[in-house]
Amino acid sequence: MKPTQDILIAAKAAARSLGALTTDTKNTALATMADALLEATNDILAANARDVEASRDKLSAVMIDRLTLTPARIEGMAQGIRALIDLPDPVGEVLDVTERPDGLRIEKTAVPMGVVAIIYESRPNVTSDAAALAVKSGNVCVLRGGKEAFASSYAVVAALQQGLVRAGLSRDMVQLVEDTTRESANALMTAVGYVDLLIPRGGAGLIRACVENARVPVIQTGTGICHIFVDASADVDMALNILENAKCSRPSVCNACEVCLVHRDVAPTLLPALDQRLHAARAAQGQSAVTFRCDDTALPLMPHGTKAGENDFDTEFLDYILAVRVVDDVDAAISHIAAHSTHHSEAIITKSEQNAAAFVAAVDSAAVYVNASTRFTDGGEFGLGCEMGISTQKLHARGPMGLRELTTYKYVVRGNGQVR
Amino acid sequence: MKPTQDILIAAKAAARSLGALTTDTKNTALATMADALLEATNDILAANARDVEASRDKLSAVMIDRLTLTPARIEGMAQGIRALIDLPDPVGEVLDVTERPDGLRIEKTAVPMGVVAIIYESRPNVTSDAAALAVKSGNVCVLRGGKEAFASSYAVVAALQQGLVRAGLSRDMVQLVEDTTRESANALMTAVGYVDLLIPRGGAGLIRACVENARVPVIQTGTGICHIFVDASADVDMALNILENAKCSRPSVCNACEVCLVHRDVAPTLLPALDQRLHAARAAQGQSAVTFRCDDTALPLMPHGTKAGENDFDTEFLDYILAVRVVDDVDAAISHIAAHSTHHSEAIITKSEQNAAAFVAAVDSAAVYVNASTRFTDGGEFGLGCEMGISTQKLHARGPMGLRELTTYKYVVRGNGQVR
Repeated sequence: MKPTQDILIAAKAAARSLGALTTDTKNTALATMADALLEATNDILAANARDVEASRDKLSAVMIDRLTLTPARIEGMAQGIRALIDLPDPVGEVLDVTERPDGLRIEKTAVPMGVVAIIYESRPNVTSDAAALAVKSGNVCVLRGGKEAFASSYAVVAALQQGLVRAGLSRDMVQLVEDTTRESANALMTAVGYVDLLIPRGGAGLIRACVENARVPVIQTGTGICHIFVDASADVDMALNILENAKCSRPSVCNACEVCLVHRDVAPTLLPALDQRLHAARAAQGQSAVTFRCDDTALPLMPHGTKAGENDFDTEFLDYILAVRVVDDVDAAISHIAAHSTHHSEAIITKSEQNAAAFVAAVDSAAVYVNASTRFTDGGEFGLGCEMGISTQKLHARGPMGLRELTTYKYVVRGNGQVR
Repeated sequence: MKPTQDILIAAKAAARSLGALTTDTKNTALATMADALLEATNDILAANARDVEASRDKLSAVMIDRLTLTPARIEGMAQGIRALIDLPDPVGEVLDVTERPDGLRIEKTAVPMGVVAIIYESRPNVTSDAAALAVKSGNVCVLRGGKEAFASSYAVVAALQQGLVRAGLSRDMVQLVEDTTRESANALMTAVGYVDLLIPRGGAGLIRACVENARVPVIQTGTGICHIFVDASADVDMALNILENAKCSRPSVCNACEVCLVHRDVAPTLLPALDQRLHAARAAQGQSAVTFRCDDTALPLMPHGTKAGENDFDTEFLDYILAVRVVDDVDAAISHIAAHSTHHSEAIITKSEQNAAAFVAAVDSAAVYVNASTRFTDGGEFGLGCEMGISTQKLHARGPMGLRELTTYKYVVRGNGQVR
């Protein structure tokens, strides 16, 4: 097993030459990486079969499904890499120019971060996604995946490295940490001088561990306790559509709705209809039925509700469960969100422009919606073309992070002897 | 003494309403804050006299000078506040708009960070500077100054709060932490959910403590081990001018030069002249003479050099001391900088466009200069109009931080019932 420190030293060395990579070189590398990945399909599937076999009795069916690769999924990973070729290269973009009266020229220029470390859990497709985003944005990446997917990720990275070498680049641009114990995660979190940016992608526990232990810059991602507030003036049909979409279209993702806040004037109309629509109607169609965790006012209005427990308004269910609370007005909704949100995505359903404006101004989240589903918070939907994760912090990047969010800038100052 | 936690709770509450502040309101507040500061001149001077008296035997003459306020300095602080009135307000700026085919409109809009905490040392003028920058950028600030300047800062903040109240704003927008022990600094570093951004302004020890202990987002500022590399083709007179300016014009600041790297071909010409210019010529004019900490090759070329010690190439001298090393070529200079720089500002003096390009591409610092002094790294010089500090990290902001760097953004998404 290669020591994590050796991987970091190699990554730092590889990062030295990255600023000079041309867009063409990076795009060529993406193409050869995608080719090499497809050529390695059999190796990757064999490795993945070992991972799946080893986890058979330990993981839920949903997790086993996430872990399992198929030829079609590997093809999808290769397409994901190729999709980056056509996206604009953010590196080298001159963001601002200042000419001083003495002739000094100051250019603010986008440059790669350097070494980006990503700690993630058991989806092997994250390995190729993250590596490709790093290469296109001119960064070196150090990947630390979950142990359940280690053999798969190792095979994927081996293929991607072959692709890099074919394009004339260093294989050290994409490296997998071989130690899958907590020790290697801690090593990345404390690698001051080696890691320029650490992105944890995973559950709340992983994110918390990074925030508590990291000495290197971190972007927190993806914990979403998303709220939808149905105002008194809401179109009830629109509210039901949006709530069903935000809760049920993919409950396991971070932009799914976990909490519904309802204005007390519309609650007697909305909540029985919501219960019918998200529970009985879905069950009748053979779809997963939602259950409701209700506050005392909502409970009598929802036949399939149970009384909310102490933590139900602070839980990312990632499941067919919705917490429901009746509030007095938009201000009460804003206050509830301020106290319970993870600052990911929140929506108001209203016909009142005034209430929409108050909600938009006061809600301190990466994405604030008026009359639309929270499920749109996504790099592709927001026009970034791709996504490394969804930042729930305010420093550097907020919401979906694309290529540009993986860059920083430097000031390049050219003179002819100027002194101050 | 008010508990730090109470201050943080009040700050968070005040931040709730800040997004809605208009530019006019903020500018009015800046004017009333400047007025109130001037009106409080006598109170501030009396408080400052107590601070100075208490520190008389503990601080150096330079530090006492930094701590001491005069009517002129208070006037300068008021002017500093007023200077922000004319600067553009970054808040509310629409940074990007995406219209989706289904009519969903996604606006990326600049918003304040929220609560910005600043930990600084003993210059009372930082109190008014930081408060004014926070108000103009729509942020609440929590100021934690050094204990030597506590009475002065308290009097300044009391005046600024009067100014806020006169403009109809909450006095809690600008608060001073009353506990000046290490405990309050730790409280700010770990105030997850209360502090959106922590900016330490001070010496390397303070910055290190923040990086090691902070659980909230931090921007490291101001540690500058700045290098100037004199290439073989350099104009020697230009190099001498720039070196004298970068070392001597204000040695106590972070953009002063601490290390001179010299190409071996030009060393026999440059180094004796540098010794003469920065030592003997300055001494003859009654100016502070620079001493040199030399590597083995430079030492015989510099009459006022001494052999460099183990740490001399990793020390921010902030004094009339320059470390000098002879290197083989631009690549060796780049490697030295990669190993020893604090990523603040570095310069190359050269006539070679190729070497300039190599240096600019490879040096990973906030500001990289070609044929100019490192002393230009400054918010005013870079056209930002002001400065909260100079970031030496890559996340969020790099180099001088002005008003825009004190904002983040959110995505405001407007629809008419869109689901995904």
